[in-house]
Amino acid sequence: MVKVGIVGGTGYTGVELLRLLAAHPEVELVLITSRSEAGLPVAELFPNLRGHVDLTFSVPDPAALAACDVVFFATPNGVAMQSVPELLAAGVKVIDLAADFRLKDEAEWAQWYDQPHACPHLLSEAVYGLPEVNRAAISEARLIANPGCYPTAVQLGLLPLLKAGLVDAERLIADCKSAVSGAGRKANVGTLLCEASESFKAYGVPGHRHLPEIRQGLNAVVEADVGLTFVPHLTPMLRGIHATLYATLLSSSDTTDADLQALYEQHYASEPFVDVLPAGSHPETRSVKGANTCRIAIHRPQGGDTVVILAVIDNLVKGAAGQAVQNMNILCGLPETVGLEGIALVP
Amino acid sequence: MVKVGIVGGTGYTGVELLRLLAAHPEVELVLITSRSEAGLPVAELFPNLRGHVDLTFSVPDPAALAACDVVFFATPNGVAMQSVPELLAAGVKVIDLAADFRLKDEAEWAQWYDQPHACPHLLSEAVYGLPEVNRAAISEARLIANPGCYPTAVQLGLLPLLKAGLVDAERLIADCKSAVSGAGRKANVGTLLCEASESFKAYGVPGHRHLPEIRQGLNAVVEADVGLTFVPHLTPMLRGIHATLYATLLSSSDTTDADLQALYEQHYASEPFVDVLPAGSHPETRSVKGANTCRIAIHRPQGGDTVVILAVIDNLVKGAAGQAVQNMNILCGLPETVGLEGIALVP
Amino acid sequence: MVKVGIVGGTGYTGVELLRLLAAHPEVELVLITSRSEAGLPVAELFPNLRGHVDLTFSVPDPAALAACDVVFFATPNGVAMQSVPELLAAGVKVIDLAADFRLKDEAEWAQWYDQPHACPHLLSEAVYGLPEVNRAAISEARLIANPGCYPTAVQLGLLPLLKAGLVDAERLIADCKSAVSGAGRKANVGTLLCEASESFKAYGVPGHRHLPEIRQGLNAVVEADVGLTFVPHLTPMLRGIHATLYATLLSSSDTTDADLQALYEQHYASEPFVDVLPAGSHPETRSVKGANTCRIAIHRPQGGDTVVILAVIDNLVKGAAGQAVQNMNILCGLPETVGLEGIALVP
Amino acid sequence: MVKVGIVGGTGYTGVELLRLLAAHPEVELVLITSRSEAGLPVAELFPNLRGHVDLTFSVPDPAALAACDVVFFATPNGVAMQSVPELLAAGVKVIDLAADFRLKDEAEWAQWYDQPHACPHLLSEAVYGLPEVNRAAISEARLIANPGCYPTAVQLGLLPLLKAGLVDAERLIADCKSAVSGAGRKANVGTLLCEASESFKAYGVPGHRHLPEIRQGLNAVVEADVGLTFVPHLTPMLRGIHATLYATLLSSSDTTDADLQALYEQHYASEPFVDVLPAGSHPETRSVKGANTCRIAIHRPQGGDTVVILAVIDNLVKGAAGQAVQNMNILCGLPETVGLEGIALVP
Repeated sequence: MVKVGIVGGTGYTGVELLRLLAAHPEVELVLITSRSEAGLPVAELFPNLRGHVDLTFSVPDPAALAACDVVFFATPNGVAMQSVPELLAAGVKVIDLAADFRLKDEAEWAQWYDQPHACPHLLSEAVYGLPEVNRAAISEARLIANPGCYPTAVQLGLLPLLKAGLVDAERLIADCKSAVSGAGRKANVGTLLCEASESFKAYGVPGHRHLPEIRQGLNAVVEADVGLTFVPHLTPMLRGIHATLYATLLSSSDTTDADLQALYEQHYASEPFVDVLPAGSHPETRSVKGANTCRIAIHRPQGGDTVVILAVIDNLVKGAAGQAVQNMNILCGLPETVGLEGIALVP
Repeated sequence: MVKVGIVGGTGYTGVELLRLLAAHPEVELVLITSRSEAGLPVAELFPNLRGHVDLTFSVPDPAALAACDVVFFATPNGVAMQSVPELLAAGVKVIDLAADFRLKDEAEWAQWYDQPHACPHLLSEAVYGLPEVNRAAISEARLIANPGCYPTAVQLGLLPLLKAGLVDAERLIADCKSAVSGAGRKANVGTLLCEASESFKAYGVPGHRHLPEIRQGLNAVVEADVGLTFVPHLTPMLRGIHATLYATLLSSSDTTDADLQALYEQHYASEPFVDVLPAGSHPETRSVKGANTCRIAIHRPQGGDTVVILAVIDNLVKGAAGQAVQNMNILCGLPETVGLEGIALVP
Repeated sequence: MVKVGIVGGTGYTGVELLRLLAAHPEVELVLITSRSEAGLPVAELFPNLRGHVDLTFSVPDPAALAACDVVFFATPNGVAMQSVPELLAAGVKVIDLAADFRLKDEAEWAQWYDQPHACPHLLSEAVYGLPEVNRAAISEARLIANPGCYPTAVQLGLLPLLKAGLVDAERLIADCKSAVSGAGRKANVGTLLCEASESFKAYGVPGHRHLPEIRQGLNAVVEADVGLTFVPHLTPMLRGIHATLYATLLSSSDTTDADLQALYEQHYASEPFVDVLPAGSHPETRSVKGANTCRIAIHRPQGGDTVVILAVIDNLVKGAAGQAVQNMNILCGLPETVGLEGIALVP
Repeated sequence: MVKVGIVGGTGYTGVELLRLLAAHPEVELVLITSRSEAGLPVAELFPNLRGHVDLTFSVPDPAALAACDVVFFATPNGVAMQSVPELLAAGVKVIDLAADFRLKDEAEWAQWYDQPHACPHLLSEAVYGLPEVNRAAISEARLIANPGCYPTAVQLGLLPLLKAGLVDAERLIADCKSAVSGAGRKANVGTLLCEASESFKAYGVPGHRHLPEIRQGLNAVVEADVGLTFVPHLTPMLRGIHATLYATLLSSSDTTDADLQALYEQHYASEPFVDVLPAGSHPETRSVKGANTCRIAIHRPQGGDTVVILAVIDNLVKGAAGQAVQNMNILCGLPETVGLEGIALVP
């Protein structure tokens, strides 16, 4: 049994992590910390966990955390980096669901997250936990930077095209739609039901923190600086991300629709959590609600040179807690899918 | 392994049954029938099942059904009763998720369901599948009438009070609110998103088919005819039933709030799927979304003689498919909770 | 033209008041105050008002308010009572949308609102602004206590029955369902979309501030202390209240269904904003979305002695801002319906 | 007073047209036809209209229609063209809210609408009713083709850029999100609340009927064939369209952000129903819910050569019924905004 601790965990990625870990057959949930809720039984804050999680939120205790095999950070950005060096030194493996270790470039991190990094020497060691790209490195890592929700959907959607060198990497568009849970569980007027329901809007068009993260991942594939326009939107629903991705086929390429479909099917043939839909499909976000799956469809409207990729994930599962558990499975030598076989809830 | 067949199964109770059975470790899903969708892979109709259910809808074939250990009917009312006698004769156990065998009185059935019953001799044999009431009988039954969603919530909420003889059984009120999935997956203007979203209404106030079913269950407990006013309402959400139940304490009784709380806690102490909340609680339907749990709270506002019971279930799980699987577990001698440990999805 | 000022107005009753007053042909909107948003153009906070409201939020200025004909308070409870005496002294008419002047009993007010009242001498003078009950008094008032949303729906639903003396006033039940906007526009975890959407729950069952307000109104009609159980519920939608009201016909009464229908139709025959639906109807909250109408239906299930009244309003219109404008029209001698003829938005 | 008839009108554009026309001070609603609902009072089908519309649906009667000044068709595609020639001959002005007269090319119409056109000779006469483009022609027209919802948002968003010749017209992307009411009020599994709520998906990526309509409008401006990729998405809400539009600045152009902002502000300076938001804005669809306004924001992320235009409308108002009334106002010589001053409902 893997002894697991969670730091933070009063937010939506936290409760989702608890849902998955409480049902995970190889995990012993040892402790969960929260300064603000210390003393409160977890199941009182999240009644869905009554009968499944007996823990009480506790004040973070370095010794108790150091006794864990794996510690997940489900904290706001900038928190994990304060404690990670000490935990690594104690031999604990760390999976950070926040953004502290996602960017390799210290200056870029500091710019987008508005603070200096507390342990920049770990940025290069941290492994970006997208298993479909970094599985081998994850299996040997001490520190995993769990990807952001948008970056997961966008990278899984674009990587096969870019790897194959079929499209113009300087003109990529990612028009992404996220459910409201992506904004977290904090008191905030903008995500009140009466503000966010029955409405749809773009946000962060001038610049969003997931932009450098996506660019870093795509750059690594094309070995050059991609040109990416990323526009996130807020959608009136609880869970789900839909990425609509646009790329232009290089005029030199002589690509058929069947080639594109085959490219994706082959690329993801052995991936347990990426599902390439039949040609002509339109994935719905609800088809992955609560599941760790990314479903993808490939289109080329009217046979032109614009390729349209549709990719959906549950932002809290494959976009956060589920991917974190997948990373834990890999680095602990467990079967990658254990504890992650849950089927999406429809309706 | 229990060999299971499903008749019907293109509706919401069907897809939920498939979700639960596909993950059930003791079940082999053998076949699923649908006249209208024969030939269509199940996972094409319900993409959430891709990778989990490989079956294709088939035309009902008596021989194939007769080879199953258990057959579930997830059909409209009036369908199961056409085939059940033959299946029972073949030694198959049957669990009907529709209403064909819920009422004991043939005339009452015919009146509320607008047709004569096709096999009235089975009405007395059929066991009403509310495990918290009929567990022993279920374990020996050939034919289970799986309860309706409202009746499950209302009976679980009222039974302890009635059994204890504390309230006036002639003045019971059940003000119930259901999610829209209770209306099924048929093309129907009234349940379009644009009709049912952002609105709330009562329906069937003059009389609803679940009224005689609830009355029958309550009558059995008090051994008299209860007086029940049942008002169902349509709530703009996917899943969930909230029953708000009102009863009047008998003036002869000298009951304290603590007595009521203790009564419920003791009554359900050994029930795996009924959760009595701490005094003062208000259960949310989302706390059981996707789970087979009924959560109950007991109130007595301002210390008066009106008791208010709040009971929530997921109408598709404890109110339909989950309870059906619970019944299957009992009658097949499996642990009652196997395949039903899923935790509610929040948010 | 009536010169109007608004104190507060950054909440949902505020923006609704602005929507109605901006389109009101007899109103000149002179100022709107908000300490927290002073300096911000109103249309920046509420973009739906762009092109319709040119005002900027200002710090409250007693002199400027004193120059108005009518001042609306759309402030939290306990704010209006600090300023009202001064405004009345200046000859301004005041309509308070909060609860400061709704209860006649000072001790009861202090108990339910957890503070002493700042000007208890005005409690008896203030007129409870339910035009269907107090129209004459409103027309001559200086100070209007605009009713709460639940109290409006419950009183309009029950008054005809109680006035006619047909039901047992000691056993009334009001099972009420409110949209989330009733909780206001403040940063609060409980009303985040991800907490309140796709869920349904009761709240405040032990006691809610609208209980004494409703009781006071009903007591006045029956000239005795009514027995009322009031259970509010939170419904996942933006606007609307649905009151399901239960009362028991007195055994002495020899009442037919037609009598009940006629009673309501006659009682409200000349009311411009109360619509008694045909027998057998089930009003939807969306049928009054954005409109100042209360729609009511009367049922007597299975001909028993329980009467079920269904009443719907838009909590922000007839339950708040619309009723406040209706009160303004009455006390300013304008036609009662002017500025309130808007038709509900469906879908 | 303009005597108005409506053909069809049991759908969402119909009820919205009724809401607007019932409150229009210069309109006398004379008749509304529906074969399926003939004999039914309009207010019974749409209870929000109780007290505002006294008409009863009637079987279409050519003589009665011929007596109207203006007839609106709120019918499925292919219906209006059967009756329009006769009405025009009778001197009636016709506004078709469906697609029968939107395309100028008969072959293209037949291809996208799967049927031959019944009166192709009228295609060239019909005026495309986008007032911001065709105001003068509309004022003299007999026959108006009211634009589709997506085409309204996309054209209003892109026209200033294209007219100014600043962007590459061969590489335009319109990523559009529509509320569910765009799919109409017909019994259909796909738009049930339980199918469309809590989910998001693209549809029609291979080709959607609004594509040729948008292209025709854009082609007219650039006097060439534009290259447009149009991807519509279904969003879980009642009303609203959000168009996210991508275009590439020509490398020859030396355009600043301020130039772009000024371009849009000047282009729409005198338009009553197009609102260009301040630089840096992100319009929400709810800011136009129920209103005839299109709100637009202009972005140029990171100062690159990709321009991102955000445009929102209410698909049932500026995208259908409101624009139809605007067209009626223009062709009847009324002030263009009369009956269309309604403020969006927030929340």
